[in-house]
Amino acid sequence: MHQTRDVIDLNADVGESYGNYTIGMDAEVIPLISSANIACGFHAGDPAVMRRTVRLALASGVGPGAHPGLPDLMGFGRRAMDVTLDEIRDYVAYQVGALTAFTRAEGGKLQHVKPHGALYNMAVANPDIWEAVAEAAASVDPDLILFVLGGGNRDELKAMGRRVGLRVACEFFADRAYNPDGSLVSRREPGAVIKDHDLAASRVLKMASEGRVVCAGGEEIALSGETVCVHGDNPQALALVRKIRETLQNAGIAIQPVGTFLEN
Amino acid sequence: MHQTRDVIDLNADVGESYGNYTIGMDAEVIPLISSANIACGFHAGDPAVMRRTVRLALASGVGPGAHPGLPDLMGFGRRAMDVTLDEIRDYVAYQVGALTAFTRAEGGKLQHVKPHGALYNMAVANPDIWEAVAEAAASVDPDLILFVLGGGNRDELKAMGRRVGLRVACEFFADRAYNPDGSLVSRREPGAVIKDHDLAASRVLKMASEGRVVCAGGEEIALSGETVCVHGDNPQALALVRKIRETLQNAGIAIQPVGTFLEN
Amino acid sequence: MHQTRDVIDLNADVGESYGNYTIGMDAEVIPLISSANIACGFHAGDPAVMRRTVRLALASGVGPGAHPGLPDLMGFGRRAMDVTLDEIRDYVAYQVGALTAFTRAEGGKLQHVKPHGALYNMAVANPDIWEAVAEAAASVDPDLILFVLGGGNRDELKAMGRRVGLRVACEFFADRAYNPDGSLVSRREPGAVIKDHDLAASRVLKMASEGRVVCAGGEEIALSGETVCVHGDNPQALALVRKIRETLQNAGIAIQPVGTFLEN
Amino acid sequence: MHQTRDVIDLNADVGESYGNYTIGMDAEVIPLISSANIACGFHAGDPAVMRRTVRLALASGVGPGAHPGLPDLMGFGRRAMDVTLDEIRDYVAYQVGALTAFTRAEGGKLQHVKPHGALYNMAVANPDIWEAVAEAAASVDPDLILFVLGGGNRDELKAMGRRVGLRVACEFFADRAYNPDGSLVSRREPGAVIKDHDLAASRVLKMASEGRVVCAGGEEIALSGETVCVHGDNPQALALVRKIRETLQNAGIAIQPVGTFLEN
Repeated sequence: MHQTRDVIDLNADVGESYGNYTIGMDAEVIPLISSANIACGFHAGDPAVMRRTVRLALASGVGPGAHPGLPDLMGFGRRAMDVTLDEIRDYVAYQVGALTAFTRAEGGKLQHVKPHGALYNMAVANPDIWEAVAEAAASVDPDLILFVLGGGNRDELKAMGRRVGLRVACEFFADRAYNPDGSLVSRREPGAVIKDHDLAASRVLKMASEGRVVCAGGEEIALSGETVCVHGDNPQALALVRKIRETLQNAGIAIQPVGTFLEN
Repeated sequence: MHQTRDVIDLNADVGESYGNYTIGMDAEVIPLISSANIACGFHAGDPAVMRRTVRLALASGVGPGAHPGLPDLMGFGRRAMDVTLDEIRDYVAYQVGALTAFTRAEGGKLQHVKPHGALYNMAVANPDIWEAVAEAAASVDPDLILFVLGGGNRDELKAMGRRVGLRVACEFFADRAYNPDGSLVSRREPGAVIKDHDLAASRVLKMASEGRVVCAGGEEIALSGETVCVHGDNPQALALVRKIRETLQNAGIAIQPVGTFLEN
Repeated sequence: MHQTRDVIDLNADVGESYGNYTIGMDAEVIPLISSANIACGFHAGDPAVMRRTVRLALASGVGPGAHPGLPDLMGFGRRAMDVTLDEIRDYVAYQVGALTAFTRAEGGKLQHVKPHGALYNMAVANPDIWEAVAEAAASVDPDLILFVLGGGNRDELKAMGRRVGLRVACEFFADRAYNPDGSLVSRREPGAVIKDHDLAASRVLKMASEGRVVCAGGEEIALSGETVCVHGDNPQALALVRKIRETLQNAGIAIQPVGTFLEN
Repeated sequence: MHQTRDVIDLNADVGESYGNYTIGMDAEVIPLISSANIACGFHAGDPAVMRRTVRLALASGVGPGAHPGLPDLMGFGRRAMDVTLDEIRDYVAYQVGALTAFTRAEGGKLQHVKPHGALYNMAVANPDIWEAVAEAAASVDPDLILFVLGGGNRDELKAMGRRVGLRVACEFFADRAYNPDGSLVSRREPGAVIKDHDLAASRVLKMASEGRVVCAGGEEIALSGETVCVHGDNPQALALVRKIRETLQNAGIAIQPVGTFLEN
């Protein structure tokens, strides 16, 4: 049986503003999470936003992470592109390096890397792409933790991350329904997104304390994750994060950057 | 009197291709130089080009350097922009970090940083900008060497670089005429560019061996530099680099990456 | 004495969103104005936003205009760039053409052109740049109306616009203080922006009905304009637009696209 | 039996330079062709290049055409992207409009539109995309001629172009082998590209005079086209264009912009 967790990580995508454009409520959400996935200028973010976001994260004791995406600002990195594996390696290395500069300049250390949007989806669907992402991250900084989504192939993806020398943290999605194979229910299906905050928070707690989740169809499966993906782009999302924090803390589970407790 | 040099560095701007577009004869010029100023994706270069260029440099024992520019691919970073000091710090840090990723991934170490085009000109004309560039580079990697151009204010710029903790290398331009204050004759003036290869090579030798240069008006001044800026974007430029190498080597002056011999 | 106006135009900058990024409350402000300055993809806007904004404008009987800017999305076109006159001509033609495509595709006709941000400022400060903008617009579509800001040199700028064959409309700024020479008080000065809605609306009315404005220092000068620049990027700005509309309409002054009534 | 042609069009992709970057030998190839497919700034080209290329085309009596691509300068528009039909409509309209501005400013008229690279391939493979391209072009300028590639579905694509109100011209590829269904042999197959200039020229002549082509496997099929696609990016490509011109002219077949003779 799964050991009850006494610590877990909350991560959110931040640093997605660009120039005069604002996305997200970074100043509000960052103090509520423990790991920040920071856009690196390809699908979102710019150098000024990156520095500002790294500063916010470090000031809140939040682990800064790179959130590299496809070079498609107009599409916010959400459109699949027919890029080669070498291009993926180059794009990931570039973005991880750029964000590393700001963590160093601000006196911190990059904690993790989590691919963004279409790149994440492409990597989960195609292990060659996953491997390219992992290799590129490891080649720049072998101390990084790689965030892993994934359904049926989660174990394969984790193994790949470890094989290239990275530590691996599994993501659990607070507001998403799961299939029995551990994959996310597609957003096109009804019920894919869990809007009830109490329900979402109780699911996070169950996963953290029991290592189990109740699937969309009612079946309960084993599913564990060291980091819980939350959102911070609107007041309701913030309210959910607060609810999750409260629920976890009431259960005696601490919220800390994954790098402080991950074992592998 | 100036000590005769027995070693000097040759630097050139490389890695300026982008996607399907080629600028420069990198494969030809890199083996002829000892330090490579590699574009970082803002005014030129892309992640694939950056990795390829870093590989070429490392394979040739050439010191890889960052060549950060303004975010203006359409203008090749040659158009002054009214950016703030903070923006400059952010742009330099971002680009230095991105290139650092490729030097690490390819098993090397970033040697130096040299601002590109309009950013270089703006920085030389405005010490606040120079300081911002130097601070940003030092904040990312205090081991970097900063290349310094400059005329009347060369000493000021050098001092600024050292004050933020960087080592500093002065640039000498092989094919440019000098004013008596040590600044370059403007390209708008006749005779600003020295086209005679024998003359250019002999000037490099005189600077290296005597620490002196004959100015456009005939006056001879003291001027020393640890690194000589050459070009590699056309066959004639390559011929000049070969001539300079031959001239220096015949005089017993070795050509090595500036990081291997710079004292300060 | 100036003839009392019975019709005037209200213009606002719209279509400034980009991809996943939103700026402005276009759906709210467009029904309140009569001319829309639509970003064209260089400093803001993208093809999807442009089409959507043109549709909104046409559906509201609002005259669509091109709002061309410098190629600097990261700086929102607010940073001066050292571009040549030819580059300015090319950038303006390109952007006017692109927006024209959407007005045609949506069954309308481009009404006017107003330079954006740094380009507008550069053009007002340098008549050669103004002429380049005007020539470029006229070369693409001689039926366009050119919006003219300007202080001491307003007449010169108007004359240039007419010389290249365009009609010209002068802008009055609802919420800005004026100097006695007809130029705007710099935003760096206290009192440059008029925040009192009643005062701003009464100033618009005075300009429209008497052709006069009370300057920052108390002096009253003659100043007329066919189009009043307002803003639509936040709820307070919208409230001011509503106040101006009400004030004008109560005084019997109609609000219509400038192209429907401009004489020259 | 197919009527012998007495006039045909030669088209080539031009205007693909960008800023300081040069691709193609436009000044050499434009006088040899009769229709120019001019990049519009998304995958290649910039406003200055577009104007210069339109000028060159008009000065040579060459019909200027828009060559819209995906928004991917780094990938030269050759990487498929998962864009929506609406995005395609918007991108095509934008680019056709931008190029129209330069043809007007330079005293000409846009003749045709030919999708570029991945967009062309996606459109040929997916009739919905083809229809979106055609609709967008027609919505901006119903006088445009749409260039049609295509194999088994060539007739369908032609019909779609006509349905939205455009005239349609079929492309024949001078240096490519054909399959019996009229599609191009994939570049991955041996023999896909015909490198022998005499052979390529004689195939163009056979197509023009007999409306037939010998396929890769030896089978002869009916295939007619009003415009022949050639290349101008290197000296050998130019030599082939000269050979084709000579061969056609010796056979009494004139070379003219397709807009001067297309019937439909």
